[in-house]
Amino acid sequence: MSPMYSDQEHIVSAYDRDLEAIQALVMRMGGLVEAAILDSARALETRDVELAEKVRAGDRTVDELEVQINEECARTIAIRGPVSQDLRVLLTVFRLSGSLERVGDYAKNMAKRTSVLVEMRPLPGADSALRRMAREVQLMLKDTLDAYVRRDAELAEDVRQRDHDVDQMYNAIFREFLTFMMEDPRNITGCMHLHFIAKNIERMGDLVTNMAEQVIYLVTAKMPDDSRPKGDETPYMRAEASDDKGE
Amino acid sequence: MSPMYSDQEHIVSAYDRDLEAIQALVMRMGGLVEAAILDSARALETRDVELAEKVRAGDRTVDELEVQINEECARTIAIRGPVSQDLRVLLTVFRLSGSLERVGDYAKNMAKRTSVLVEMRPLPGADSALRRMAREVQLMLKDTLDAYVRRDAELAEDVRQRDHDVDQMYNAIFREFLTFMMEDPRNITGCMHLHFIAKNIERMGDLVTNMAEQVIYLVTAKMPDDSRPKGDETPYMRAEASDDKGE
Repeated sequence: MSPMYSDQEHIVSAYDRDLEAIQALVMRMGGLVEAAILDSARALETRDVELAEKVRAGDRTVDELEVQINEECARTIAIRGPVSQDLRVLLTVFRLSGSLERVGDYAKNMAKRTSVLVEMRPLPGADSALRRMAREVQLMLKDTLDAYVRRDAELAEDVRQRDHDVDQMYNAIFREFLTFMMEDPRNITGCMHLHFIAKNIERMGDLVTNMAEQVIYLVTAKMPDDSRPKGDETPYMRAEASDDKGE
Repeated sequence: MSPMYSDQEHIVSAYDRDLEAIQALVMRMGGLVEAAILDSARALETRDVELAEKVRAGDRTVDELEVQINEECARTIAIRGPVSQDLRVLLTVFRLSGSLERVGDYAKNMAKRTSVLVEMRPLPGADSALRRMAREVQLMLKDTLDAYVRRDAELAEDVRQRDHDVDQMYNAIFREFLTFMMEDPRNITGCMHLHFIAKNIERMGDLVTNMAEQVIYLVTAKMPDDSRPKGDETPYMRAEASDDKGE
């Protein structure tokens, strides 16, 4: 009995070491993606083409980290044969890294627009609104990773709720762009660019929310069963709709 | 030597049976999500509140299938201890089911709008444009699942390319809505609803593209390294931008 027990102990600690190494990679990846979100928003606001280029180049590292994490997850599963909770942790990490990679993609996409926006005339308030939105998503991502590390379902649930704010910000920006475009058709192209950026940020928020749900699932073993708060709900509100409904 | 070999054979075939059962669940889930995409678009076009309600109710089954698939994947990994390609197949299925669930969410979201749209005046051509877009995404999803089953990286790559068409459709619809809104402000609320629907469909296309990339990764063991074709690219085109740039 005793050798088996010590064998078991050996396996557990080897798994722990592997998991720790993988988690370190995820945290590094998360840090890079957080920075990419903030940098791409800042590049946009200050029309800093050089910083935007840095974000675009940096996405390669994020992509490489995803591949590395996936391989390490597969290797650890194959070698250590984890079961139950240990296996679920690895499967969660595997999904989180996929979402992180996509958030990074959207940040890169946002950065790519900076070089076009330098040629457009600025719209009052639009850039700072987008930066605030990006900042909120970055904080959500930070908290999601913290929630993962601390196995804190409450914090993850908090993130999930905050996605609603991001969606509200998106809706507010969308309405503002509409006004700009109707005021002066020369604003249309610029607004469309900025709208695509807002859409990118909203989508990042969506991905981060999904990550938070994965964390909740990991900690509580069940998915939040009320459907996720969707900012797209706003337009369901009849009060809002009734403004323009007098046809 | 011979007993070990037969033991190995036994393990392999048990794994195959498990995998087959999981794949059957994925295909069922895929079929339900395909139907949800088409039904929600049709409900929208024909203002069929009852059909929309059916889509919303049906999403519960999709969610349950995801949970079931995840559990079966984890169970199979834990019990069969698959390695290398077998393990990669299961990890791919695990990710595909997550994306499928989210596509289903967007279809449900789309269906939810039908009840609001019945109160709006219709915009010429908008509903059929959205239906065509939804139809394209449904076909992409069908081909992605076929590509998975047949391990056909070429077909998956074809899906990936077609996401560009969906994004182009989105951009065309977006521009059309802009025109409607500028022509008559009473169109604004209706257009905003329809725009959210177009955005949902585009996002489904995005998720399906991501699924296609997972299939490519499974078959070829590497991610397509040129970044995914993004319809958001359209506005990068200077020719298009130059129209309104004379400020």
